[in-house]
Amino acid sequence: MAGPIPTSPLALPLPKLPPLAGVRLATGEAGIRYKGRTDVLLADFAEGTTVAGVFTKNLCPGAPVSYCREAIKGGLARGLVVNAGNANVFNGLLGVRAVETTAAAAAATLGTTPEQIFLASTGVIGEPLPAHKIVAVLDTLKANLAADRFAEAAQAIMTTDTFPKASTRTARLGGVEVRVTGIAKGSGMIAPDMATMLSFIFTDAAIPAPALQAMLSKGVDTTFNCITIDSDTSTSDTVLLFATGQAGNAPTEDPGELGEFRRALHEVMHELALMVVRDGEGAQKLVQITVDGAVSNASARKIAMAIANSPLVKTAIAGEDANWGRIVMAVGKAGEPADRDKLGVAVGGTWMAQAGGIVPGYDETPVVAHMKGQEINIEVDIGLGQGRATVWTCDLTHGYIDINGSYRS
Amino acid sequence: MAGPIPTSPLALPLPKLPPLAGVRLATGEAGIRYKGRTDVLLADFAEGTTVAGVFTKNLCPGAPVSYCREAIKGGLARGLVVNAGNANVFNGLLGVRAVETTAAAAAATLGTTPEQIFLASTGVIGEPLPAHKIVAVLDTLKANLAADRFAEAAQAIMTTDTFPKASTRTARLGGVEVRVTGIAKGSGMIAPDMATMLSFIFTDAAIPAPALQAMLSKGVDTTFNCITIDSDTSTSDTVLLFATGQAGNAPTEDPGELGEFRRALHEVMHELALMVVRDGEGAQKLVQITVDGAVSNASARKIAMAIANSPLVKTAIAGEDANWGRIVMAVGKAGEPADRDKLGVAVGGTWMAQAGGIVPGYDETPVVAHMKGQEINIEVDIGLGQGRATVWTCDLTHGYIDINGSYRS
Repeated sequence: MAGPIPTSPLALPLPKLPPLAGVRLATGEAGIRYKGRTDVLLADFAEGTTVAGVFTKNLCPGAPVSYCREAIKGGLARGLVVNAGNANVFNGLLGVRAVETTAAAAAATLGTTPEQIFLASTGVIGEPLPAHKIVAVLDTLKANLAADRFAEAAQAIMTTDTFPKASTRTARLGGVEVRVTGIAKGSGMIAPDMATMLSFIFTDAAIPAPALQAMLSKGVDTTFNCITIDSDTSTSDTVLLFATGQAGNAPTEDPGELGEFRRALHEVMHELALMVVRDGEGAQKLVQITVDGAVSNASARKIAMAIANSPLVKTAIAGEDANWGRIVMAVGKAGEPADRDKLGVAVGGTWMAQAGGIVPGYDETPVVAHMKGQEINIEVDIGLGQGRATVWTCDLTHGYIDINGSYRS
Repeated sequence: MAGPIPTSPLALPLPKLPPLAGVRLATGEAGIRYKGRTDVLLADFAEGTTVAGVFTKNLCPGAPVSYCREAIKGGLARGLVVNAGNANVFNGLLGVRAVETTAAAAAATLGTTPEQIFLASTGVIGEPLPAHKIVAVLDTLKANLAADRFAEAAQAIMTTDTFPKASTRTARLGGVEVRVTGIAKGSGMIAPDMATMLSFIFTDAAIPAPALQAMLSKGVDTTFNCITIDSDTSTSDTVLLFATGQAGNAPTEDPGELGEFRRALHEVMHELALMVVRDGEGAQKLVQITVDGAVSNASARKIAMAIANSPLVKTAIAGEDANWGRIVMAVGKAGEPADRDKLGVAVGGTWMAQAGGIVPGYDETPVVAHMKGQEINIEVDIGLGQGRATVWTCDLTHGYIDINGSYRS
């Protein structure tokens, strides 16, 4: 593709990101692939910081993913190193050595053990990661560590993202106010990269690792795992949640006490996940798909994802065509229980099809107006049960072909 | 989209299509949606013609599919009516009435019962099919029935196909020569239609319906069920196989005796299936993907389909980029057993990645040349077992967005 990718029309500005006790950040230029921009992030965590993580289900994961899967077992984190420009995927033994080198050097820099260092890389795959370039800047990064660098951090982890992504919330926990701040990147692309999604979430709350993991895993189910740009699962997807315990609350695992925190965490994850969709390759429209009346929530999610991943549905949305016929097709191909004679489809709140046929004489005017907007809302009623799910995607446009069909250079 | 869709660069000319004893065909202009072109096909079969069929697995099938699923139970066919321009899908009771009206009228015209009439429709969905327009031309069609109209038949069933599709073979069966001739349509599109695939195959062999069905079902597994344009399963997909028994062979169900016939049938189905891919929306390249070394054939097929349906792989091919990283990603997301450290990927016969890493110093020259061609060959070695499968797809280009993202008019 000629020229830079323009900023997504769905981009959002960064929110105000206050410091978070127990987290210090620094970004730098390691020159791994990009020139003249930051491409490496170092995070330093207070002693005793707990950690939870979820990783790609892709069976050909990157070396950093395999590394983090091991490290997460300890439940404690003192540092995080993220680089952009090289995903360290499909590099065999060289990939393993690169993560070992980086983790050992970062541990020495921060005065901890490699088991408490977490790593993530995205960018080009199949090219050995020059770990020495990261190691070379660690001392400078350490000297620059500061608490107010969340915006810089969100910027440094971008690959072909067109805008930085962050979200923050506060919650009451054990009588004190705690903060949750997250950053994410995804899903721009330069051949031969793959779309990859990284998110790092930080809180000053004191929460033991198992409770943290439970909340993260559950939260991912309805946020990051409910978005899709193009149905292609990355080899690097990683979400890490760090709790520094510096807010002063008594550590708790009590689900009742954690209610407000869980909601704040969920809002941060939801907001970050939607920002990734807003930066979907070639995206012109953000699409929310809610499926109701399925036989179970899992069934509803599968149907919603079949709609969200259907190239025919996505191109119709790009064309501002409320093509309910393609939605019906996608429901039918999902393989989940459905009865065409009970099916209903609404776009922008207007029911176009109900009980297996077009609604006679329905007024298309509000639907046409809705389709011209940037945020498209699709509802499907399966009419069989109580199962419900909402997922988010973007439209499929010429921009996607431009970005991903460019000659490798 | 402005203007007509240009003929696919991958189009093939129609082969010579000799008459087939026991099959007479006629096409006409019912004016269901298109003007100035034929849009309806009537086929008349000799008494005793056996029939086998396979239909879409989409759970929201069209009324003609539901109708044929019932009719096929009798195993006998005297007639076939196909229309283009209206799929008779998602029309509720009106859809059922339309197939009943058409079947009754065609049965009366051909002097048989509705149970021996088969129906197929593709085109716009959610609009009632004006069956009376088909009924009105049946007498004229009957008067025009002739044995040498296969080319016209292939033309009449097209919707937004850019070229007619037919294939023919001969085989020895029970001491006589029998012929197998098939026609197919797919997969052009005008919003708000869906891509739909129809194929009708005819033979003058005498083969009982159960044996016919077994051969058709098995053949579909490695032909029509191994192609994908965009992963969207149509609500109208139908393959019907009619055996008129006029060739003079003694009816047989013996698998050994049927060997040569089965091969001829398979070749016809293979050729037709690939013609559908060649007419894939926006297709510029025909892509063959072979996965070997999987734990089973089914596993190999699932991995191959994950590659074939990956928008990232398909856009890379459109960009003539031998992006093996995206192929590795697709293998990993398929969810089938795979070990990244045993994986190999070849393009155009050149192994680019092997044993989990890029082949050191491999010569990219032949790969670059191969990617510029019209027929792309991808091989993946999973390195775990003996499972093998081959599937076919096309690239994902701006043409696909043009065709499917156009405003509804």
